[in-house]
Amino acid sequence: MKNKKIYKAHIIYTKEQSRFEVLENGYVAVGADGRVIGVAADLASLDSKDAEFIDFGNRLLIPAMNDMHVHAPQVHNQGVAMDLELLPWLQNYTFPEEAKYADIHYAERMYRRFIHTQWLFGTMRSCVFGTVHTESTRLLMKLYQEAGMGAMVGKVAMNRNCPENLSEDVEAAIEGNEQLIAEFNQTDALVRPIITPRFVPSCTPELLKACGELASKYQLPVQSHLSENTSEIAWVQDLEKESTCYGDAYNRYGLFGQTPTIMAHCVWTSGEELEMMKRNRVMVAHCPTSNFNLSSGMAPVRTFLDNGLRVGLGSDISGGHDLCMFRMLTYAIQVSKMHYQLDHNRRFLTLSEVFWIATKSAGSFFGKVGSFEPGYDFDALVIDDSVLHPDEYSLLHRLERYIYVGDDRQIVHRFCRGKEITEPKM
Amino acid sequence: MKNKKIYKAHIIYTKEQSRFEVLENGYVAVGADGRVIGVAADLASLDSKDAEFIDFGNRLLIPAMNDMHVHAPQVHNQGVAMDLELLPWLQNYTFPEEAKYADIHYAERMYRRFIHTQWLFGTMRSCVFGTVHTESTRLLMKLYQEAGMGAMVGKVAMNRNCPENLSEDVEAAIEGNEQLIAEFNQTDALVRPIITPRFVPSCTPELLKACGELASKYQLPVQSHLSENTSEIAWVQDLEKESTCYGDAYNRYGLFGQTPTIMAHCVWTSGEELEMMKRNRVMVAHCPTSNFNLSSGMAPVRTFLDNGLRVGLGSDISGGHDLCMFRMLTYAIQVSKMHYQLDHNRRFLTLSEVFWIATKSAGSFFGKVGSFEPGYDFDALVIDDSVLHPDEYSLLHRLERYIYVGDDRQIVHRFCRGKEITEPKM
Repeated sequence: MKNKKIYKAHIIYTKEQSRFEVLENGYVAVGADGRVIGVAADLASLDSKDAEFIDFGNRLLIPAMNDMHVHAPQVHNQGVAMDLELLPWLQNYTFPEEAKYADIHYAERMYRRFIHTQWLFGTMRSCVFGTVHTESTRLLMKLYQEAGMGAMVGKVAMNRNCPENLSEDVEAAIEGNEQLIAEFNQTDALVRPIITPRFVPSCTPELLKACGELASKYQLPVQSHLSENTSEIAWVQDLEKESTCYGDAYNRYGLFGQTPTIMAHCVWTSGEELEMMKRNRVMVAHCPTSNFNLSSGMAPVRTFLDNGLRVGLGSDISGGHDLCMFRMLTYAIQVSKMHYQLDHNRRFLTLSEVFWIATKSAGSFFGKVGSFEPGYDFDALVIDDSVLHPDEYSLLHRLERYIYVGDDRQIVHRFCRGKEITEPKM
Repeated sequence: MKNKKIYKAHIIYTKEQSRFEVLENGYVAVGADGRVIGVAADLASLDSKDAEFIDFGNRLLIPAMNDMHVHAPQVHNQGVAMDLELLPWLQNYTFPEEAKYADIHYAERMYRRFIHTQWLFGTMRSCVFGTVHTESTRLLMKLYQEAGMGAMVGKVAMNRNCPENLSEDVEAAIEGNEQLIAEFNQTDALVRPIITPRFVPSCTPELLKACGELASKYQLPVQSHLSENTSEIAWVQDLEKESTCYGDAYNRYGLFGQTPTIMAHCVWTSGEELEMMKRNRVMVAHCPTSNFNLSSGMAPVRTFLDNGLRVGLGSDISGGHDLCMFRMLTYAIQVSKMHYQLDHNRRFLTLSEVFWIATKSAGSFFGKVGSFEPGYDFDALVIDDSVLHPDEYSLLHRLERYIYVGDDRQIVHRFCRGKEITEPKM
């Protein structure tokens, strides 16, 4: 077996948010460690000695997608009961579904379905909420390992304002997390644990404190929800009276950038909270379909970018209904265009900006992921857009059309850290 | 050949906007004329003598989709150059593309592609803008006839504020329209002409007057654009100073409900214009993806419904990027949820409401279309949602999941006025 591979295709990626790098009939060299060695418009610029050569012809080669906020155990509720308001939806659909994950067999059937769908749509890395159940969460991590796809997977911490069968006391939460940490917390592993308090209203101060201590002790990343809707913000203010803002309620427990942190939604984030996120390098997981479906509002992504905040995109099923991150790109642009309609000073997001957000910006949460620059993990998709009449369009318009009009049928190869990812077992 | 057919399936449709009719293992009888004879939960309730019986098993049978506003000659621009502002986009993409339809061979290639895509997504009726070219428009109508799909097709009238090669003088516009009217204006035909002034800024008063006279003389329907964005409204006010509102600028020329009229967008319609639409029974073609993509705004559909306005949904490619009307349903709900977020008195649209809007409400523009009540044209889709795990869901959740998560792959039969529509030649 050769150590090095060189792929030829029309290569498109974003080094910077303001523009695409486009290499027509370009080449990318990938080492045995799955990292990019070099990318070039001509073969002569790369050291091709002893390399295996793979020609993708007229196809597009782009970085793979990253889903920065998703609830794997909600796969069964995808596209269901969207007419309900948030509270009856949580009580009648979300929580009862999560309770089923006490059954490892149910969990396996659904988690395989979930990972298969992510695979279909070319999502190679995710920040994932599991459930409170340690065994099901371990299984989810094992299934990601089996698939070869990258994920930060959280056993969800929650002990208040939720059904009793989903509430776990603080000691059990710590123990369950430590089991998973012992098993999975290896440097550079594709599948790793992430500390996951559901959100402030679901966690007592003791549980939030325990979460912060776990994150600090094991230097683990953190994920949760932040400022998704206005009544939630008021609720948090009421629960955590000493906090100066919702973000501060996490910050006080060491859950807001003390280790790498990603917060979903941030629809209503501004002022002090925004400043704190910037200072602490907390990443926003922008979930536009979910924000529409749950009547949350429209997150001010342009403002986040202008302030230098880190941003990625999330599907957030089943608040969101779609696991296709490409459609999330179009939704993110559309949300930004509604802000632009209200105030022309808030320029809407361009295609290169959302592409960069979804790939290199989001990918930075996992390490060097989301670009084809040397040293980056080779996470990639090969797009065969023959049905979209590629001969009639420029390469960038081909990419744009794929993003707006394409679907999983056009993704013909998927790579995660250099390894081709074949269809996971359902 | 038998005169009558009886189809068995899980039948779902909307007689009223507030709720679905659901017939588990139900039956619908269709006469030789393609109209529904009866629909029932049990076979005994229908006269099944001499009927051919077709069993669709565990599949869903629903009314077909209607696209109430779409520019067929923009199919090549679908999903392209969405980063541009409206004016450079019109000048560099929209108009140059339409000019190509002077070439009948180009028109044939693109119009076949367009109709094929509509067929894929189960759109059996449309209100379509062609171009200013009579021959290409005739061809488009012929291709719809060949496919067996229903359409009101407009030769576009425009003679100002557009490139010279798309401008046509008033006499030529009248003559071209009369040619098409002579050939296609048959009562009850599936493919019919519709009077189509592009929009007020594109048409001199003389041309608008000629359009109104054609509509009146031949009792033809009318389609155009209305109150899409705020600068357009100001422009119209400047061009038609005597008009009391944008809608009145059409009304004064007999183009606002004097014959059946449909107006795309109406994002900013309120007050007098809304009253006039109600009085004149002018239908709104709500185009949510286009309104997002072009930063137009969010049309107040709940307000339209509360005021008894007629409403349908439009894809509006290439302002919209998607010819799948099912995705338009989800977007329409999402727009309404953003209105709801701002004002909880404006209830968001439920699934049955958007389904009714897209089928029975929209379909009323074509006659008795969009329902399975007796006398309605049998326009229908058979949905095989096996990949969406139908055994785990209720029938209504199966439909909801298909709308939110499905695509063309699950549409396995398409009917227009009783006839099964097979794949059109590309």
